[in-house]
Amino acid sequence: MSVDRLSWQIKNEATLGELVQLMNLSADEAAILKSLQDKAHQQAPAMREDFYERLLSHPQTAEYFSNVNMNHMYSMLQNWFVELFCGVYDEAYARRRIKIGDTHVRIGLPVRYPLAMLDVAMAHAETVARAHAQPDAAATAVRKVLALDVAVFNQAYEDRQIQALAEMVGNERLARRLLSGEA
Amino acid sequence: MSVDRLSWQIKNEATLGELVQLMNLSADEAAILKSLQDKAHQQAPAMREDFYERLLSHPQTAEYFSNVNMNHMYSMLQNWFVELFCGVYDEAYARRRIKIGDTHVRIGLPVRYPLAMLDVAMAHAETVARAHAQPDAAATAVRKVLALDVAVFNQAYEDRQIQALAEMVGNERLARRLLSGEA
Repeated sequence: MSVDRLSWQIKNEATLGELVQLMNLSADEAAILKSLQDKAHQQAPAMREDFYERLLSHPQTAEYFSNVNMNHMYSMLQNWFVELFCGVYDEAYARRRIKIGDTHVRIGLPVRYPLAMLDVAMAHAETVARAHAQPDAAATAVRKVLALDVAVFNQAYEDRQIQALAEMVGNERLARRLLSGEA
Repeated sequence: MSVDRLSWQIKNEATLGELVQLMNLSADEAAILKSLQDKAHQQAPAMREDFYERLLSHPQTAEYFSNVNMNHMYSMLQNWFVELFCGVYDEAYARRRIKIGDTHVRIGLPVRYPLAMLDVAMAHAETVARAHAQPDAAATAVRKVLALDVAVFNQAYEDRQIQALAEMVGNERLARRLLSGEA
């Protein structure tokens, strides 16, 4: 890797617009998602139940919930799920999703845990999609918006880590090269 | 975050075993996946076509494929897809998946790109699942193995970054605290 990359110039909220374009998330798909938001609202408690049943059964993840107001956590998770179906995937949306990633970074949570919950969210999101008159198109839209969410969420981890390293070594380019093992 | 975390002790290949347990990926589900491997083999070229059509249409991702043997890339991607259905999710499997993550870290690829391809892999994996006599159970298994893959793949990014920082600051605990903004 002897060159800088175009992709390194795209940061923070701008990553969402880039990914919407990469993934061809269309206006029609955004409209399908929006039309399913009420259904998502109905599905959210069942999703939250499966989600927390898994997290609280496992000592390594349950540990993060000691001394935490669980009602607040439940409500945050349900809101996260419903907002997947908001229909507007712009910079303000990206900012809200990145903020969720940042919160997870701040508590020192290894990134594998939120990612290993994806199948639960996906199963419930597909249940929502099946309520649409065009279930296949809806399933495609639902998969895109969840992949988008994972990518942006995760970018918060990468950005935070690159930033921490860049602060120590004095510049971001060197930080990226250190991380790739090329510096 | 004034405490160390149980989860910080689990590293590298051991993360897969932990996640298999967290996600309750059962022997029955592993058997379902294995029974679909031939079907996955048939589906792989269509998956690869959708996958690379997206990546090569976008300047920021296409850039990583200049001067690359594309036939080799195609074959690696198809193998990756077929191996999701190998039926054995052990340390050797984890090692192979982490190695794929490491390769992506080494070329300086922002983590958002592989993650934003998840919907393509998921759509084709669900097509494979529908070939099973119990399509809903197969879809559940397929979603788990893909979420597992994303989590382990991604852990390679996190581990590499923590390791780079730990080498600079002298220990991993301090590195984790720097990344969470608490040190």
